[in-house]
Amino acid sequence: MSTFGEYFRVTTYGESHCRSVGCIVDGVPPGMELTEDDIQPQMTRRRPGQSALTTPRNEMDLVEIQSGTEFGVTLGTPIAMIVRNKDQRPHDYGNSTMDLYPRPSHADWTYLEKYGVKASSGGGRSSARETIGRVAASTIAEKYLKLAHGIEIVAFVSSVGGLHMFPPSATHPTPSTNPAFLSLIETVTREKVDAFVPVRCPDAAASAKMAELIAEFRDRHDSIGGTVTCVIRNVPSGLGEPCFDKMEAMLAHAMLSIPASKGFEVGSGFGGCEVPGSIHNDAFILAPEIPPLETGASKNGHPRPKLTTKTNNSGGIQGGITNGAPIYFRVAFKPPATIGLAQQTATYDGDSDGVLEAKGRHDPCVVPRAVPIVEAMAALVVIDALMAQQARQISRSLLPPLKQTIPARRTTVGGEDAIKKQHINDHGVNGLKKE
Amino acid sequence: MSTFGEYFRVTTYGESHCRSVGCIVDGVPPGMELTEDDIQPQMTRRRPGQSALTTPRNEMDLVEIQSGTEFGVTLGTPIAMIVRNKDQRPHDYGNSTMDLYPRPSHADWTYLEKYGVKASSGGGRSSARETIGRVAASTIAEKYLKLAHGIEIVAFVSSVGGLHMFPPSATHPTPSTNPAFLSLIETVTREKVDAFVPVRCPDAAASAKMAELIAEFRDRHDSIGGTVTCVIRNVPSGLGEPCFDKMEAMLAHAMLSIPASKGFEVGSGFGGCEVPGSIHNDAFILAPEIPPLETGASKNGHPRPKLTTKTNNSGGIQGGITNGAPIYFRVAFKPPATIGLAQQTATYDGDSDGVLEAKGRHDPCVVPRAVPIVEAMAALVVIDALMAQQARQISRSLLPPLKQTIPARRTTVGGEDAIKKQHINDHGVNGLKKE
Amino acid sequence: MSTFGEYFRVTTYGESHCRSVGCIVDGVPPGMELTEDDIQPQMTRRRPGQSALTTPRNEMDLVEIQSGTEFGVTLGTPIAMIVRNKDQRPHDYGNSTMDLYPRPSHADWTYLEKYGVKASSGGGRSSARETIGRVAASTIAEKYLKLAHGIEIVAFVSSVGGLHMFPPSATHPTPSTNPAFLSLIETVTREKVDAFVPVRCPDAAASAKMAELIAEFRDRHDSIGGTVTCVIRNVPSGLGEPCFDKMEAMLAHAMLSIPASKGFEVGSGFGGCEVPGSIHNDAFILAPEIPPLETGASKNGHPRPKLTTKTNNSGGIQGGITNGAPIYFRVAFKPPATIGLAQQTATYDGDSDGVLEAKGRHDPCVVPRAVPIVEAMAALVVIDALMAQQARQISRSLLPPLKQTIPARRTTVGGEDAIKKQHINDHGVNGLKKE
Amino acid sequence: MSTFGEYFRVTTYGESHCRSVGCIVDGVPPGMELTEDDIQPQMTRRRPGQSALTTPRNEMDLVEIQSGTEFGVTLGTPIAMIVRNKDQRPHDYGNSTMDLYPRPSHADWTYLEKYGVKASSGGGRSSARETIGRVAASTIAEKYLKLAHGIEIVAFVSSVGGLHMFPPSATHPTPSTNPAFLSLIETVTREKVDAFVPVRCPDAAASAKMAELIAEFRDRHDSIGGTVTCVIRNVPSGLGEPCFDKMEAMLAHAMLSIPASKGFEVGSGFGGCEVPGSIHNDAFILAPEIPPLETGASKNGHPRPKLTTKTNNSGGIQGGITNGAPIYFRVAFKPPATIGLAQQTATYDGDSDGVLEAKGRHDPCVVPRAVPIVEAMAALVVIDALMAQQARQISRSLLPPLKQTIPARRTTVGGEDAIKKQHINDHGVNGLKKE
Repeated sequence: MSTFGEYFRVTTYGESHCRSVGCIVDGVPPGMELTEDDIQPQMTRRRPGQSALTTPRNEMDLVEIQSGTEFGVTLGTPIAMIVRNKDQRPHDYGNSTMDLYPRPSHADWTYLEKYGVKASSGGGRSSARETIGRVAASTIAEKYLKLAHGIEIVAFVSSVGGLHMFPPSATHPTPSTNPAFLSLIETVTREKVDAFVPVRCPDAAASAKMAELIAEFRDRHDSIGGTVTCVIRNVPSGLGEPCFDKMEAMLAHAMLSIPASKGFEVGSGFGGCEVPGSIHNDAFILAPEIPPLETGASKNGHPRPKLTTKTNNSGGIQGGITNGAPIYFRVAFKPPATIGLAQQTATYDGDSDGVLEAKGRHDPCVVPRAVPIVEAMAALVVIDALMAQQARQISRSLLPPLKQTIPARRTTVGGEDAIKKQHINDHGVNGLKKE
Repeated sequence: MSTFGEYFRVTTYGESHCRSVGCIVDGVPPGMELTEDDIQPQMTRRRPGQSALTTPRNEMDLVEIQSGTEFGVTLGTPIAMIVRNKDQRPHDYGNSTMDLYPRPSHADWTYLEKYGVKASSGGGRSSARETIGRVAASTIAEKYLKLAHGIEIVAFVSSVGGLHMFPPSATHPTPSTNPAFLSLIETVTREKVDAFVPVRCPDAAASAKMAELIAEFRDRHDSIGGTVTCVIRNVPSGLGEPCFDKMEAMLAHAMLSIPASKGFEVGSGFGGCEVPGSIHNDAFILAPEIPPLETGASKNGHPRPKLTTKTNNSGGIQGGITNGAPIYFRVAFKPPATIGLAQQTATYDGDSDGVLEAKGRHDPCVVPRAVPIVEAMAALVVIDALMAQQARQISRSLLPPLKQTIPARRTTVGGEDAIKKQHINDHGVNGLKKE
Repeated sequence: MSTFGEYFRVTTYGESHCRSVGCIVDGVPPGMELTEDDIQPQMTRRRPGQSALTTPRNEMDLVEIQSGTEFGVTLGTPIAMIVRNKDQRPHDYGNSTMDLYPRPSHADWTYLEKYGVKASSGGGRSSARETIGRVAASTIAEKYLKLAHGIEIVAFVSSVGGLHMFPPSATHPTPSTNPAFLSLIETVTREKVDAFVPVRCPDAAASAKMAELIAEFRDRHDSIGGTVTCVIRNVPSGLGEPCFDKMEAMLAHAMLSIPASKGFEVGSGFGGCEVPGSIHNDAFILAPEIPPLETGASKNGHPRPKLTTKTNNSGGIQGGITNGAPIYFRVAFKPPATIGLAQQTATYDGDSDGVLEAKGRHDPCVVPRAVPIVEAMAALVVIDALMAQQARQISRSLLPPLKQTIPARRTTVGGEDAIKKQHINDHGVNGLKKE
Repeated sequence: MSTFGEYFRVTTYGESHCRSVGCIVDGVPPGMELTEDDIQPQMTRRRPGQSALTTPRNEMDLVEIQSGTEFGVTLGTPIAMIVRNKDQRPHDYGNSTMDLYPRPSHADWTYLEKYGVKASSGGGRSSARETIGRVAASTIAEKYLKLAHGIEIVAFVSSVGGLHMFPPSATHPTPSTNPAFLSLIETVTREKVDAFVPVRCPDAAASAKMAELIAEFRDRHDSIGGTVTCVIRNVPSGLGEPCFDKMEAMLAHAMLSIPASKGFEVGSGFGGCEVPGSIHNDAFILAPEIPPLETGASKNGHPRPKLTTKTNNSGGIQGGITNGAPIYFRVAFKPPATIGLAQQTATYDGDSDGVLEAKGRHDPCVVPRAVPIVEAMAALVVIDALMAQQARQISRSLLPPLKQTIPARRTTVGGEDAIKKQHINDHGVNGLKKE
């Protein structure tokens, strides 16, 4: 379905060649200041055509709030947002070749198999343009996350083709054990990342090499993939719902829903499989004292977690639940399927095959453009998990404090001995005063 | 939440030390023969303690159907299944050390942060025992998938620590371009995989080395991770729901919900980022004639897709929708957090730290045990997507056939020229006769 | 939430004074012809201001499809529809009195209690204007229901104040036992109902009296309530999901979600409580042979049910599941809260009270306007239940036929005797050929 | 589906003749004391066979908690509960007559139409035994509602056949204008209601007459319907989700999901259609000072609403949202379909008809037994709406306070004049301190 989230519920619509694309966001907290000025910047960051390296198709993508705010304040009711499509019928896609051949590794054929109706744009909803609604919705989530908890989400390009910011090595099969990487994710900002537009790799040397590699593929009319790493800082502990909706499960779902994504890893990830448990385990330490953030949570006296971990191979998530340390993950994007090189492929009816050659200019590497979309989906995951946990916390806060010894009878398993050992620790509900 | 799926909806319950674990499965097709004999084998495969390499804790795990069948036939109503817990209060976990220290990289601390109640088993629902309900539910899904479509799901261990069945190389940064790998996934069976118990890597040489490596870690009281690869064969084309519930997104969600998983990649995955688009693109070819499977779908005249792809870097999914080629993916599992080696870590209250040493024998590598759980979650994803698509297809089949030229007026974007070029291809709805 | 339905999922947005109102419809079957011409008529029927009896506020309510169709054919992707608000800031509501006093029996105060933000229109989403999105969505559902199954939905005004078309009597405490009523619901059409605009009561004498009564209340600056009866004909048997989503439960949910509704009864309803079971029970009879409808279902060989009932006190639903007989129900609407008469009431802060007098002309009776909204919600309920059942049926149709005797072992309760008596009737799956 | 609720999610399973019936409850707040002793009393109240007036079938219905609590305290994880079926294969239902004839107004035939499998008990999930899971789940909800907010839910029999506690009259077409009724719902308790077992009508005279009427129908081997009225007191203001999930819509959904229910009305209901708006409107008044309840909400400083209404024709709900006044509603139950009198009806295959006579003793009137089920469903609705609203409130509480004048630019509709009139009332968010 085209809906994401349970508490902060985003429903998107639109394909490349219809009147508009957009979304309805249900569950936005009431009483938050919000105008298009909060939304447009990330829409513009998402927009292609920002440099010679990416596709020059110019979309202005001006967002219009339709409902759910009044005098610049959210009402708590659904917020609909629309962005008009300028090119409602592009010429590149209308040629007769496209009508005969499903494009290799595109969604043309699978959409036809699924729906039995051939849309003029091939796989309409598989278009990157569909992500506009997601990004628009995410800006509302991000504003809330920032105001309430100081949550920051920053994504950046961590590899293009074989060029990696942190290539796996014998010492560090995963960047999660590499201090340089850990330092980067603690500090990197969107400003820093955008200083390296069009590549969006926040390292001058790596960025330059990547730009070269992308240019090389562009000149060859070929394409190349890459990875985006994303960090989420200042996440409260306790987010993520056992057992199916663990925080990493929701992030993986969200990331693999982005067009062209092929993989996801959190914390130590695939490389972590090669690290012994004795090194991989994150020992607990007392959390350092740091000045409280200027957030709603700190003003309302929500405590920060007492503990943190010495290392962070877990990527801020243990047992599917956040522990307060930075969450970080990496997403793989395949080489774009649209290339200028000739490709031999079958017609829709399979009766013959021929050579397909894409006209016009196409994006040789989508990874830099994927950066704001990764951030958007991360924001949608975090706000949903946060609202679920906040709901649990306020529910619990209205219950009487637990007695230390509870005269449980019929439900006690383990007998007298068990009861003696019982240990109800009623401390530590993050975000609520102790009872 | 503890519910997975929209059409084939599985709700699980239970932690290690309560009366029972189990599930309710809602949405099971009525009229399918089903008894515990269909369910128990995979339950037993899931069970630990099958060899010296894995944890010797003996759980019999006998499943009992509570409802939803009569005389061995499904009624279409919810099927509840329960498995009694034998060890309702284990001693290993009840010691005083465990009560003071949250175990590193376990869920003890995050569960307490989330719920504010300390369960005797630490992170109760993060226990591998929670997966019993999933596996029980999946056997019903698997039986249906087999009968209706001949769908086969086989998972196997593809790496332990640094030992890979198909190590990445300059030629094959991803196994998806490696003919040996492609041949394996076309043919591998559960019987073949279980011939290599306890490692479950279907290659004699690799399996032997992996067993050695695991034994080595066991003897060092340490642990190691690894990866599981899974293939799903005979999947109809057209499954997967744009845009948020793409097939790969649902698989990623499902896999990252398995305890200890850290990563997911589909098709060419992370390695595919390093392959040029011109090689990565999967050209379409006419699907070869093969004898129809003995399935409900073939008996009801559901056609197989006309096209297939020459290569399969897409892993059977394009634009989030299956194309009929085998789906394959890989899941990363971290080294188990419970190790015998001493670990310095803080107490719950953070006031002091100390040394934690796990007693008893523990599993040095969970990857072989993860195999049936990966299969289980794959089955739950596929049946849900299948039922969604079947619902769409029958809905559509009751509509009148489309005329080739439609007098669309107000909704036509692109003007007269667009209308001339209109191309409504009404063929190819998989699984339904052409209209 | 602002979402209705699981399979045919409608999400609406918008309040009285924002840019637009509308909806996204997800789950529309692909390949159905659809343009605004299919949608506008019911939008116009919903529109107020059609006569001197209803509110003269003129809203043109032109609907625009934003997405999900191409060349007048549904793509299977989400269909967004918007209707611009003309009066984005009305003056009647902006006066200072309204700012001080919550209007009695309006939603002004409860919206403020809920959201903590005072919208300029009082309870924005409680406005009748919110129903535009519902009606737009329902026209798509209705088109499908008509094409696939010949389903007809007709609502009409059955009472205004104390004037009833079928007043309860000692003989007929419920109209369900009244032959005149049963004959009416078998035959009434929208054309017939609209012949009695503005009252929409399809009986000349009753309609005239009701018009008089409404005029009387209008002239007194007061208001009056009434009831709407709705019939759904040609519904396939088997719709409705046990146990929480019974057909009548979903209809009740839908109807009580309409602004100003206060009650719902299905079949014999409240009056049926007074009828003895021996009269109330609907005996089964062989269904009469009738010429098949020109529908997708009949063309695809879906059989009609073999049985029907002699009487229909059940209102077409038994055990929460449709039996193929007409579904009929009645909905109560309270007198509109906005009246011209002076009302003494407290200010928002409760510190003082005063007299509130509504300016302008207001609708003395909403019942006639509720007619298309009742139809709309009925359509949304029926299509969702239909798609759920169609999904079940196609799933089942791919299973092997059941053997008459099943060697069930461990799940058989009741022992040998039970097995002997076992009776698996594999006939009668409506809509699928027998296996 | 067999799931109810979004936040407090109940999934039930089981039919009359399987191993057990029960449920899984997901979303229970952690840290609440809970044992079977909290659950059993309402289970026992639900149990039939409590007097000569109701069915003598004896079911002990002992509930067992399977998971989700430890040492008598909720963990926040899913709570599974099961109740074993004693009569797993009753003889009354196994006779050959039952196998040939679908029972009139039972679910035998519609279940077969839906599922295509004939269960031995006819419509298995339509059995009243299915409500066990609902009642078990509701006791957890009720305990929370009581502890956190002092919410009380009391249902009672308000009519049997034509005997009404508050018969409609010219003066009071609806009890909502009758002071005696209003006084009753303010004060009635479960103890009072159960003092009138078996009828459960809390009025000695009415109860005696009703008992006589039921006995009369029993002796005639016939059956009769009736209504249950339910009141919910101390509900916080602000509950209910616009626009589809209004409080009354959820209540209607819940009530019409109870077996044998045929109608629902809230507040003034059907009778209210006949009352002029000028009388029907509930004027606001300052809420009287009353001593705070001993609840979690009052201890946490959640304010009570400032206003209440002078009358309560709205039944505590305005615009779909609670206003803090008592919610009350009435549910119609049809005469039980199982009667001893002979009935002529068709066989399953329609080829012949015959006479069906139910053996054994059956319940001549289900209304008294429906009382605890109505309470159960009311509790499930209220807790879900409460948790949704509490989630919204805590989300909002973390936002910065709104400035009185907001420099909204692009989203402001209505121009300068509108901005001047803007009125952001930031008071009155029930349950959170003012910002």
